[in-house]
Amino acid sequence: MLTYDLKKSPGVPLYEALYRCIRSDILSGKLTPGQKLPSKRALAANLEVSKITVEAAYNQLISEGYICAKEKVGYFVEQIEGFPKAPAPRSAPVEPSQTENTVDLTAGGSVQFPFSVWSRLQRGVMLDLGESLLRPLPNQGHPGLRRAIAEHLRAFRGMDVSPENILIGAGTDFLYNLLIQLLGRELVYAVEEPGYGKIRQIYAAGGARCVDAPMDELGVMPHKLGQAQVLHISPSHHFPTGLVTPPARRLELLNWAASGNRWIIEDDYDSEFRFTSHPVSTMQSMDRRGRVIYMNTFSKTLAPSIRISYMVLPPALMAQFREKLGFYSCTVPSFEQHTLERFLTEGHFEKHINRMRKAYKNKRNRLVELLKNSPIADRITILEQDAGLHFLLRIRTELDDGALTARWAQAGIRIRALSEYYHGTTPPQDERCLVMDYSGLTEEDFSRLETALKEL
Amino acid sequence: MLTYDLKKSPGVPLYEALYRCIRSDILSGKLTPGQKLPSKRALAANLEVSKITVEAAYNQLISEGYICAKEKVGYFVEQIEGFPKAPAPRSAPVEPSQTENTVDLTAGGSVQFPFSVWSRLQRGVMLDLGESLLRPLPNQGHPGLRRAIAEHLRAFRGMDVSPENILIGAGTDFLYNLLIQLLGRELVYAVEEPGYGKIRQIYAAGGARCVDAPMDELGVMPHKLGQAQVLHISPSHHFPTGLVTPPARRLELLNWAASGNRWIIEDDYDSEFRFTSHPVSTMQSMDRRGRVIYMNTFSKTLAPSIRISYMVLPPALMAQFREKLGFYSCTVPSFEQHTLERFLTEGHFEKHINRMRKAYKNKRNRLVELLKNSPIADRITILEQDAGLHFLLRIRTELDDGALTARWAQAGIRIRALSEYYHGTTPPQDERCLVMDYSGLTEEDFSRLETALKEL
Repeated sequence: MLTYDLKKSPGVPLYEALYRCIRSDILSGKLTPGQKLPSKRALAANLEVSKITVEAAYNQLISEGYICAKEKVGYFVEQIEGFPKAPAPRSAPVEPSQTENTVDLTAGGSVQFPFSVWSRLQRGVMLDLGESLLRPLPNQGHPGLRRAIAEHLRAFRGMDVSPENILIGAGTDFLYNLLIQLLGRELVYAVEEPGYGKIRQIYAAGGARCVDAPMDELGVMPHKLGQAQVLHISPSHHFPTGLVTPPARRLELLNWAASGNRWIIEDDYDSEFRFTSHPVSTMQSMDRRGRVIYMNTFSKTLAPSIRISYMVLPPALMAQFREKLGFYSCTVPSFEQHTLERFLTEGHFEKHINRMRKAYKNKRNRLVELLKNSPIADRITILEQDAGLHFLLRIRTELDDGALTARWAQAGIRIRALSEYYHGTTPPQDERCLVMDYSGLTEEDFSRLETALKEL
Repeated sequence: MLTYDLKKSPGVPLYEALYRCIRSDILSGKLTPGQKLPSKRALAANLEVSKITVEAAYNQLISEGYICAKEKVGYFVEQIEGFPKAPAPRSAPVEPSQTENTVDLTAGGSVQFPFSVWSRLQRGVMLDLGESLLRPLPNQGHPGLRRAIAEHLRAFRGMDVSPENILIGAGTDFLYNLLIQLLGRELVYAVEEPGYGKIRQIYAAGGARCVDAPMDELGVMPHKLGQAQVLHISPSHHFPTGLVTPPARRLELLNWAASGNRWIIEDDYDSEFRFTSHPVSTMQSMDRRGRVIYMNTFSKTLAPSIRISYMVLPPALMAQFREKLGFYSCTVPSFEQHTLERFLTEGHFEKHINRMRKAYKNKRNRLVELLKNSPIADRITILEQDAGLHFLLRIRTELDDGALTARWAQAGIRIRALSEYYHGTTPPQDERCLVMDYSGLTEEDFSRLETALKEL
């Protein structure tokens, strides 16, 4: 068991002292890559500190890549090239932790990134553009990329968008923050309930008041929006229910917006992964009165580490952006913008999306097959619409959600209940639904799943 | 020996004509990779131009990666894969507008970006790291880059900073916004008066109340800070006055912060360009009570289109960031972060900074020389301290600032008066000061300036 005399570091918080001790042991080689660390509880007892102190120290070590956490297994010293030699691992990024024997149905994953194409385009951009890559970019983003995105939206989404109404930013987190500044933080923002919790956190951090937008089986209900002046919505594929809002409800929502000078932020985050060919058209396309802000990102379709998102503003709002916030610099490096421009205009993105869609569809089908042939087959219903990277699994059981997900965890499956995506209201109590995100499943996961489902 | 008829290009400066001729020979394959170019002296003699003209042309070719200089050996055509095929930038970004005959003393400019080194590192990052570049990064930024920055700060600024207290973001605009969310928008933020207007705009857009931090000849005056709880300050080189705040005043400001649980944001934006070797140490280093947030950016030192900035938070504030804002994704692509990591750890940044410092110092000296030999020499005083990319020019004149800058504009010089940097208070009326930013001046600009100064 690790034993340190933490009293030796006056003026340094306890967790920091502990963190330093462990880090020092890793750097010196006393703790070796792959070695398991004591559990938080055990180490806390041994050192006579609180579990929170140990947790804080472990978290810091994780964030710096010294150790990793394996769900339900424990904490391990990381395998990083260059350890334990010296300070400078040139740096394999930290792997998202995954236990050896756990299948994770909560974390998405990007597959089949066209790495060699992307690398070739990067080299071409460097050679062709040279110094000109170093010049400051227009704050809305590189015009060529904006043209390419407009063309992509025309071809894939039937949208008629002018490049000058597109604004490129380093991720949707950043763009939401811009929107709060543009629309005003004194407005009331409604977010889908249930929904993706991070959006709520960002609006709150930006100083805006956030309320629930309750949903029925068609999507957000306009008459339940109360005092809201901005509605953040993902009508083409709601997370986590998978709901696709039909055109009639979309029109109702557009009327809600137009009638009160309100705004709709249409978050189209995974529309590329629709499995059939006739998607519902975007609300942005249906909007005749300039109330819809369209948002999308390349993080889901390419890779999370490529930080390029964009939004399409109504022309009047873009004019306001230029006037009020035109001092902001563009947040995306020009090199990345030019590479993505070529990736789009040369047709690689289309091919990539088609490949991804097939891969995801295969994963979805295999998962459905597994479930249908599993011992729980007679107790489950798969709820899905024609879209996305996840579906809902309704289960007849006497267990509550906590006990249910705990049982799955025991069997080696990490999963979340739908109720975990309710933030402002009480989730319905009458049914048990699990959210199955299959996008990150590997071959190995499928065989593990087959075994695990038998243990439920 | 290279021979060109440089007279053939009317309206184009001589060095530019020479640069174009050589570039064209490289692109056409007449000059081949690895081939040695004539020495500056020999080529100047052969073409009957000055050595300075040849030097300017060579410098431009180096900065664009067409040729490289080998210390004590000479100049060589670069080995760049893909040359000499394609001339065709498929989309050169929009050039900042500049009138043909106007010298711009308001816009900064980056010189001599080490493009070929950067390209080589980019290729290496792609080859070595491959798919791992696609994984999500820790939200504080790539640990390897944070270690490299900590090491850089130790070596260049004598700062003792832990990589885990560094937070990397896509530009300072973004980081200021994070700080507002972290410290609280209900606090009162003081910004230097006079100062850089954009900082004020960002705090206002973020919803924070902004007040003036009046300055005397030592910097911001602590007893004039009124209700302010956060002070944004650039003590090592104030813009636009060039003022360097001495240690005693820094201590007073630190006491002001510590005595009221207030915060100081130390903006060290151009500290790398100090011309002598003993810079004043940072306030972050002097701070014993965890009240200073240190900020810096690579936009000034590398290129505005490389969107990488960072801040160093006091440990307690970083813990708060993780707790309150840990849901934010890192905004800088991993590819850029790894490239910069190598640029720093392999010593290229240090070399680059040394080259830049020399280049800026030369520009500064030439501008001072021009002014001292101009017809206005007896009416001007140059106000500067040992730092930065600009100085103040005090002029004895009967004109007010508006008339003065208008007269300079007529002579073909775009320039701003110090009074234009006062935002919240009335500028002093008793003297005329112009802000001379010389960082973007080209060979051509200097000869135009010489003429223009005679017309004042």
